Amino acid sequence: MIPQNDLQSRAQRIRVIGFDVDGVCTDGRIWYGPQGEALHAFHTRDGLGIVSARKAGLILVAVTGRTSANVAARLGELKVPHILQGVHKKAESFGGVLAQVGAAWEEAAFIGDDVNDVPCLRRAGLAACVPESAEGVARFAHVVTRCRGGEGALRELIEMVLRAQGRWEIDGEPTP
Amino acid sequence: MIPQNDLQSRAQRIRVIGFDVDGVCTDGRIWYGPQGEALHAFHTRDGLGIVSARKAGLILVAVTGRTSANVAARLGELKVPHILQGVHKKAESFGGVLAQVGAAWEEAAFIGDDVNDVPCLRRAGLAACVPESAEGVARFAHVVTRCRGGEGALRELIEMVLRAQGRWEIDGEPTP
Amino acid sequence: MIPQNDLQSRAQRIRVIGFDVDGVCTDGRIWYGPQGEALHAFHTRDGLGIVSARKAGLILVAVTGRTSANVAARLGELKVPHILQGVHKKAESFGGVLAQVGAAWEEAAFIGDDVNDVPCLRRAGLAACVPESAEGVARFAHVVTRCRGGEGALRELIEMVLRAQGRWEIDGEPTP
Amino acid sequence: MIPQNDLQSRAQRIRVIGFDVDGVCTDGRIWYGPQGEALHAFHTRDGLGIVSARKAGLILVAVTGRTSANVAARLGELKVPHILQGVHKKAESFGGVLAQVGAAWEEAAFIGDDVNDVPCLRRAGLAACVPESAEGVARFAHVVTRCRGGEGALRELIEMVLRAQGRWEIDGEPTP
Repeated sequence: MIPQNDLQSRAQRIRVIGFDVDGVCTDGRIWYGPQGEALHAFHTRDGLGIVSARKAGLILVAVTGRTSANVAARLGELKVPHILQGVHKKAESFGGVLAQVGAAWEEAAFIGDDVNDVPCLRRAGLAACVPESAEGVARFAHVVTRCRGGEGALRELIEMVLRAQGRWEIDGEPTP
Repeated sequence: MIPQNDLQSRAQRIRVIGFDVDGVCTDGRIWYGPQGEALHAFHTRDGLGIVSARKAGLILVAVTGRTSANVAARLGELKVPHILQGVHKKAESFGGVLAQVGAAWEEAAFIGDDVNDVPCLRRAGLAACVPESAEGVARFAHVVTRCRGGEGALRELIEMVLRAQGRWEIDGEPTP
Repeated sequence: MIPQNDLQSRAQRIRVIGFDVDGVCTDGRIWYGPQGEALHAFHTRDGLGIVSARKAGLILVAVTGRTSANVAARLGELKVPHILQGVHKKAESFGGVLAQVGAAWEEAAFIGDDVNDVPCLRRAGLAACVPESAEGVARFAHVVTRCRGGEGALRELIEMVLRAQGRWEIDGEPTP
Repeated sequence: MIPQNDLQSRAQRIRVIGFDVDGVCTDGRIWYGPQGEALHAFHTRDGLGIVSARKAGLILVAVTGRTSANVAARLGELKVPHILQGVHKKAESFGGVLAQVGAAWEEAAFIGDDVNDVPCLRRAGLAACVPESAEGVARFAHVVTRCRGGEGALRELIEMVLRAQGRWEIDGEPTP
């Protein structure tokens, strides 16, 4: 794990937050019925985090290997501007969005939970993973979140960035 | 955390119990299908607590930022008399109900889990939050529940109030 | 908690197993949609326990305060012979089944999680509750299960009875 | 528990991976609605594990006592080639597949959670069970997974086999 000071300065530079969905915005479970995929469970505190990040001008990018109408519904409701589904090479797809919005990799945070997130974690200015990530993933992260996936891990990363930038408020008061 | 004696006297004055829904009556998860929000999970022991509170004459008020038919269905079934959904300024909305029923803030308990609950927690006579609340919220609570959100946290607050008032019974016997 | 020897002799006498549903066969959660109650989650290892108990000749009795088609569907599939729903006075209803099948209270086990189960726990020959029971319930139980509600608590009680009676087998071999 | 070296050599011989479904690919819960079984929750990291195993040429065999369209939908999506449902004698059914594909029992891994999995665990070259297995099951396993059922237990077994065979890669690099 890298020193706290370094985390702080990494977080201060972030303009874009990329995130995996299954296992990060959820605890990894997908509910199946007889016709296949039926439901995903998302967390309300992640929702408040995403809305706050958007209002603060951070650019949010979901990057996921699966393709799910449930995910589109939830992230659409929260007005996440970039929702990349069915992605096989995550670093190329996420890198494409970075180029499009004119951000460098060091201005991007990324949070994941599995081996297919490693290419993004290797390159991101602030790389995070959930504590229950697949074996070997944490090695590529600057920080392991305290919250598990689907229980506020994405919110925790968003708060870390906004607090470092002096833009997180509780009841009207900035909170470092 | 404030001393136990003080909690006891705060609880004795309570006539109204206000509560957030997502993250308090639930563990924060909302299940989404292709059409958006589909399901909320509520706890049976909270249900028994709400019914007991109502029968004991406590006034229950749900105060939530989202608007959900699932929440309306559950709280309606339990006959919660005030269900405030889509609320942006929680202290103003909850304060409005207090004025309407003729109760002072010090006669109101409130339980929440996130930063948008802080304005109510600051004013309530008995302020509670769940143990997994967002960072910085517990600072504004007189008590942190032992139960997590969706696992009996609201029930715990209700019992705390009714026990302090000598009105909680187990099999016909009052239990302090 | 009573001594292990006593538990053993209590379990040896059991012919009927009564159980609460919400919070015992489930973790207490009920999923709600816009039309109200939608889903209950039951555990597969409880299912195997119920089937084993039935095959061993134990009489199973579900006793629950709510009325749910989900519960009827699950317990019907497992061929539980007595399913008492919408019960307000659990000891009277369960006692009625005991009279009907000619069993004494000391031949009955009961497992619950909340204060409305206490009247049955007080009378049962073997009274059990889940570890996360409402405050004050465990005082009326001879044993607190290791498994939580919805994670095998009922199965644990069934195994305790069948093992004490020398009727629990693993791969054809009796296991005390 | 057997020594690590032995586990390594057992894993190196594996060509077939058999697994129970409820309690192994899930946490044992099944969601019921008024019409009976409605939903199963599967884990995304198990999904990535199954796909990796299949691409590496391992033969996957699901062996379950129940019969569920939900299970067929999920395992079909992941292209599991052998899905044995409604199985009463698991060792005979799984043994039949082994004969069909020309594999010996010592070339087969099996992971389960309950007493009806014991006949397969007794015979498998690499026998695994989840940590919350029914009492007495772990006695028949060479290894107890760190992950619980439905939270990556099957993935953990698959990784154990592929790592032992030098065929597990993270971002293009083999990882022992």
